[in-house]
Amino acid sequence: MEPVIAANADLAWMLAAFVFVLLMFPGLALYYGGMVGSRNILNMMTMVLSTLGITAIIYVLFGYGLQSGPSVGGWGIIGDPTDYFGLTKWMSDEGTGTTETLYYVAWFILFAAITIAIVASGAAGRMKFSAWLVFAPIWLILVYLPVAHWVFAADTDDAQGGFLLNDLKIHDYAGGTAVHMNSGVAALALALVLGARRKRLERPNNVPLALLGGGILWFGWFGFNGSCALGASFLTQVVILNTLLAGCSGMIGFLIIEKWREGHATSLGLITGTVAGLVGITPSANTMNPLGALMVGLIASAVVALLLSFKSKFKVDDTLDAFAVHGVGGIVGTLCIVLFAAESAPAGVQGILFGGDFDILWRELGGIAITCTFSFVMTWLIAKALDKTIGLRVDEETETTGLDSTIHAESAYEIPASGVGHGPGLGAQSRHTTVSVEHAVAQSVPAGQS
Amino acid sequence: MEPVIAANADLAWMLAAFVFVLLMFPGLALYYGGMVGSRNILNMMTMVLSTLGITAIIYVLFGYGLQSGPSVGGWGIIGDPTDYFGLTKWMSDEGTGTTETLYYVAWFILFAAITIAIVASGAAGRMKFSAWLVFAPIWLILVYLPVAHWVFAADTDDAQGGFLLNDLKIHDYAGGTAVHMNSGVAALALALVLGARRKRLERPNNVPLALLGGGILWFGWFGFNGSCALGASFLTQVVILNTLLAGCSGMIGFLIIEKWREGHATSLGLITGTVAGLVGITPSANTMNPLGALMVGLIASAVVALLLSFKSKFKVDDTLDAFAVHGVGGIVGTLCIVLFAAESAPAGVQGILFGGDFDILWRELGGIAITCTFSFVMTWLIAKALDKTIGLRVDEETETTGLDSTIHAESAYEIPASGVGHGPGLGAQSRHTTVSVEHAVAQSVPAGQS
Amino acid sequence: MEPVIAANADLAWMLAAFVFVLLMFPGLALYYGGMVGSRNILNMMTMVLSTLGITAIIYVLFGYGLQSGPSVGGWGIIGDPTDYFGLTKWMSDEGTGTTETLYYVAWFILFAAITIAIVASGAAGRMKFSAWLVFAPIWLILVYLPVAHWVFAADTDDAQGGFLLNDLKIHDYAGGTAVHMNSGVAALALALVLGARRKRLERPNNVPLALLGGGILWFGWFGFNGSCALGASFLTQVVILNTLLAGCSGMIGFLIIEKWREGHATSLGLITGTVAGLVGITPSANTMNPLGALMVGLIASAVVALLLSFKSKFKVDDTLDAFAVHGVGGIVGTLCIVLFAAESAPAGVQGILFGGDFDILWRELGGIAITCTFSFVMTWLIAKALDKTIGLRVDEETETTGLDSTIHAESAYEIPASGVGHGPGLGAQSRHTTVSVEHAVAQSVPAGQS
Repeated sequence: MEPVIAANADLAWMLAAFVFVLLMFPGLALYYGGMVGSRNILNMMTMVLSTLGITAIIYVLFGYGLQSGPSVGGWGIIGDPTDYFGLTKWMSDEGTGTTETLYYVAWFILFAAITIAIVASGAAGRMKFSAWLVFAPIWLILVYLPVAHWVFAADTDDAQGGFLLNDLKIHDYAGGTAVHMNSGVAALALALVLGARRKRLERPNNVPLALLGGGILWFGWFGFNGSCALGASFLTQVVILNTLLAGCSGMIGFLIIEKWREGHATSLGLITGTVAGLVGITPSANTMNPLGALMVGLIASAVVALLLSFKSKFKVDDTLDAFAVHGVGGIVGTLCIVLFAAESAPAGVQGILFGGDFDILWRELGGIAITCTFSFVMTWLIAKALDKTIGLRVDEETETTGLDSTIHAESAYEIPASGVGHGPGLGAQSRHTTVSVEHAVAQSVPAGQS
Repeated sequence: MEPVIAANADLAWMLAAFVFVLLMFPGLALYYGGMVGSRNILNMMTMVLSTLGITAIIYVLFGYGLQSGPSVGGWGIIGDPTDYFGLTKWMSDEGTGTTETLYYVAWFILFAAITIAIVASGAAGRMKFSAWLVFAPIWLILVYLPVAHWVFAADTDDAQGGFLLNDLKIHDYAGGTAVHMNSGVAALALALVLGARRKRLERPNNVPLALLGGGILWFGWFGFNGSCALGASFLTQVVILNTLLAGCSGMIGFLIIEKWREGHATSLGLITGTVAGLVGITPSANTMNPLGALMVGLIASAVVALLLSFKSKFKVDDTLDAFAVHGVGGIVGTLCIVLFAAESAPAGVQGILFGGDFDILWRELGGIAITCTFSFVMTWLIAKALDKTIGLRVDEETETTGLDSTIHAESAYEIPASGVGHGPGLGAQSRHTTVSVEHAVAQSVPAGQS
Repeated sequence: MEPVIAANADLAWMLAAFVFVLLMFPGLALYYGGMVGSRNILNMMTMVLSTLGITAIIYVLFGYGLQSGPSVGGWGIIGDPTDYFGLTKWMSDEGTGTTETLYYVAWFILFAAITIAIVASGAAGRMKFSAWLVFAPIWLILVYLPVAHWVFAADTDDAQGGFLLNDLKIHDYAGGTAVHMNSGVAALALALVLGARRKRLERPNNVPLALLGGGILWFGWFGFNGSCALGASFLTQVVILNTLLAGCSGMIGFLIIEKWREGHATSLGLITGTVAGLVGITPSANTMNPLGALMVGLIASAVVALLLSFKSKFKVDDTLDAFAVHGVGGIVGTLCIVLFAAESAPAGVQGILFGGDFDILWRELGGIAITCTFSFVMTWLIAKALDKTIGLRVDEETETTGLDSTIHAESAYEIPASGVGHGPGLGAQSRHTTVSVEHAVAQSVPAGQS
């Protein structure tokens, strides 16, 4: 992918799509923050949001070059950051011919940062914030940027790009490997090194915020997948429709499995299924017709739901299920391409169930194996090395008290319990509640006195 | 409306507008969820979000054809879904000439789903979730899709469209009939069949989330109304400005009536007025100049506020006021076209107060009467039939305990009451609060021990 | 700035950017609302949202003319609203040549309203809502609209514009003066007249909502800054990238100072730093290369953080730090232009550290001095005059009880404390929490009985 935006109508869409993706950060912060306990929500949100600061600085200094620069030695392993320091080349007159590329720097910063933010979920509630601020940039440089080079840097006339894209020729429309499998597997490795939380019984502190966060993620996903069409075209329409459909069928697939296995259809299940469906469609959005997109969402979310129904059997505490949702979801989505990609879709890939060449099976399996192995091994090594040196995990008292108050000196909420400390609440609020005056006055008596 | 997007600049806007509308789903889920009691918020949000899954699957299979296919028998009643199964026709080479239409499938899925989601509000806190999953698709097929065919399917050279649009020639810019009157009246009918909640005294559990949800709805409304301009044009500018103005004057109109009738101007009143103003401008956005748009918002919200000030006199428990806000708001907005549409606005309609032909009065009244009657009768019949067979309503214990824990096995919040269970919260938080160390420590003593 | 949009690709971006900015209103309402006490959040949110209603009506009647009309007497002080009443001129056929301008009315309404909303933060928790509804429109007319005329109204062939833009020729890309310094200084003056809250010890009631609000502000800021590029162009790309980078480095700069001065890095610090960085890049976004944008965010947020670390020493209760964040942040951002603007950036301004002409120093200092002095003096006079007549401040009992229940007859939350009044919450929620049945049942026993 060495993209050039054709015209400013394409740019108009690409700019809007970028802005959509930005909202995924508060969205992901709420999605994860809402699911942890109330003593750790701010820590979780801060971990997610801090990825932007870390990533942006590294990208401007040398990260963008490591990702998109010409492959060092032509090996397709890592880009050469020379010429990319400060990104000033695009501001000069000579840069006019490639000026459109400036947009991609902003875009790739968001892609990288959201990937790191997913990794953060594996460390929820037990990692030192200072250790996170060391781990995150190292992981970005040693894990994300190489993988991003492998799959995002296209060969050009002048220079060689990444080997997964150009040599193995994997099909990954919008980041199933670099973003989803990578982050899911890394979250698992980090959780493994950290060990399980002392108290795994914590309930989600604010499910409505988690649902909102998931909804915002969907919103942003249209920017994420949609911007990979590099403009406003028929391809973009296909991708937008498929991203809608896979999210929709994702919620259904998860609820069915959940109802069967657990006896209840939950709101968190609905939104988790939506996200799993979206993960599934990320690599495959340009390879499916509408029925295929519905199937991708359904299958990806059902597999994730099935896996999670055995969660209590696993010892590793992948706290917010990043491995299941992003790792497994990404793998399933990729295998859906192999199985039933529609040749009539823009990518023109034909799944083997429709008579396509088996060649794609080996290529996709190769991409999955290389990405997941590299991500797991490297993340484990980084985490282990940091744990031995600076220490990753908070002490027991900090964990028990909660990270918000101990590390950040904050508490998330200062909300009185129902019926305590509030005035009667009459007037127009009664419109929504038909509170009678007597009832309201009664309610306003502090609980302890009633 | 058999729309063709002219150029990809138009498509850039249409794609962005689509994404805006998607955010209305978490927005509506919060808006309704925040207004119910804390034991039912997740059920409410799940009902709203589940409409997407249901609608998407039906649209891909046959729903889009029922809506936009050529009228069966040329009667203008319902579309013919043949050729629309799986929507694959647009992926083939032959479909190239009409490829832009693919976007509209995604778009119409959102329109349909948001309509059903509004209906859900009439059933808040007392409907089985399983019954909802049966009711929603039946309502979509038997009520929404016919009405959508009547008003959205335009005649073409090859085929006849819906009778309200093409024969009666009603003016409805962006869905005053199919979306707002339809959902408002249906919510009323559903509430009537369900009966009132046992405890109508419940207060809103989270007003800030309801306000956020309403704000997100406004955001999405620019996509909703804006995309009906089918591109980025002068018309789009008029519609965007008018959608802003009617929301703005809507909040003012509601607050004035509320202050007069109830003695207080509330935050929920402000946001309800905004939504009512937006409902009013939905059918009329292309018929008004700026002063007219201000009047539409003011009048629609004032009428809704006045009606709601008599709410306690009504026996039917239209829990979250969908009938008042969407039904009546939509009717008032349509009547505003009749009365004072500005000929200088893009639609070129002249209101009868400005000397326009009375013809429009009969046409609009006809559209209102047909839509509302059909929606009420059909919804009542569907709900009654389901109630007699599978049963719509939860039992008393479930209702008293709350639907979140009984049906979904979840609870929305796990938040300690103020001052309990949190550390001191010093540091930078003191910047916002100037908490002294002593005060903070005192606060951190559990309530029971102080 | 007498802007004309060239083509409809530009319009597509401008329309999307407008919609992004709209979401800043619920965003700002949450950002401020989350930081006040739980008894005042709805009042704060209502103050913020009400600015839209007030501003829209005034703009349509005469406000847009005061801002963008030809300067009365050619003095560059205020626009002539004649011909702008009702904005109907743009709906007529004759208006076709300038029809694109219609968009700008909507756009400028949002700019004005968000400025007033920032001022509201200075009055948090102690101002009568009725007084706010008088203060806000007066402030808009007497303070905002003149300053907006000075800096936004460009000279044309036919008419003279504002003196700061055309005569003093200050550089202010997207509203550092009219929006940020103006609102920050005015919030300070209003807070001064109101006096400090009786209880300055209040903790933020909902930090997650404040973080979400801040995140939404960032999202909207891309629309705010991005739309000032008047289309989709290379300039827009530069502005979008710089707005991302300054927000990113802003969070880092604030956390560093906070950790050093307070001993903790907080989530509110992270988001405050992000906002401060965004304020800093607002006037300078078209003058910086990427390294410069990182520096602007870093410096602006560090200065703001340093200032706030002395907050307890100040007697004036600028409740939510509008003066520090918007006033000082805006000044620092402007001085960054003077110091290290990059000539290679689109604006072509060269900072004096890079050998630029000192001329820009005097011009920018002049703009800062004139804006801040005018805003402070006028706001103080308006507030004092209203205080002597209608009275600005609520009485002691109202303030102690909280403004939500007393003024608005509402309470924000009706949420039971943890473990009270909820069912067990098993099933799929256990997936996220591994709650054992025994534990869950134990938890569901009401607290008083355990």
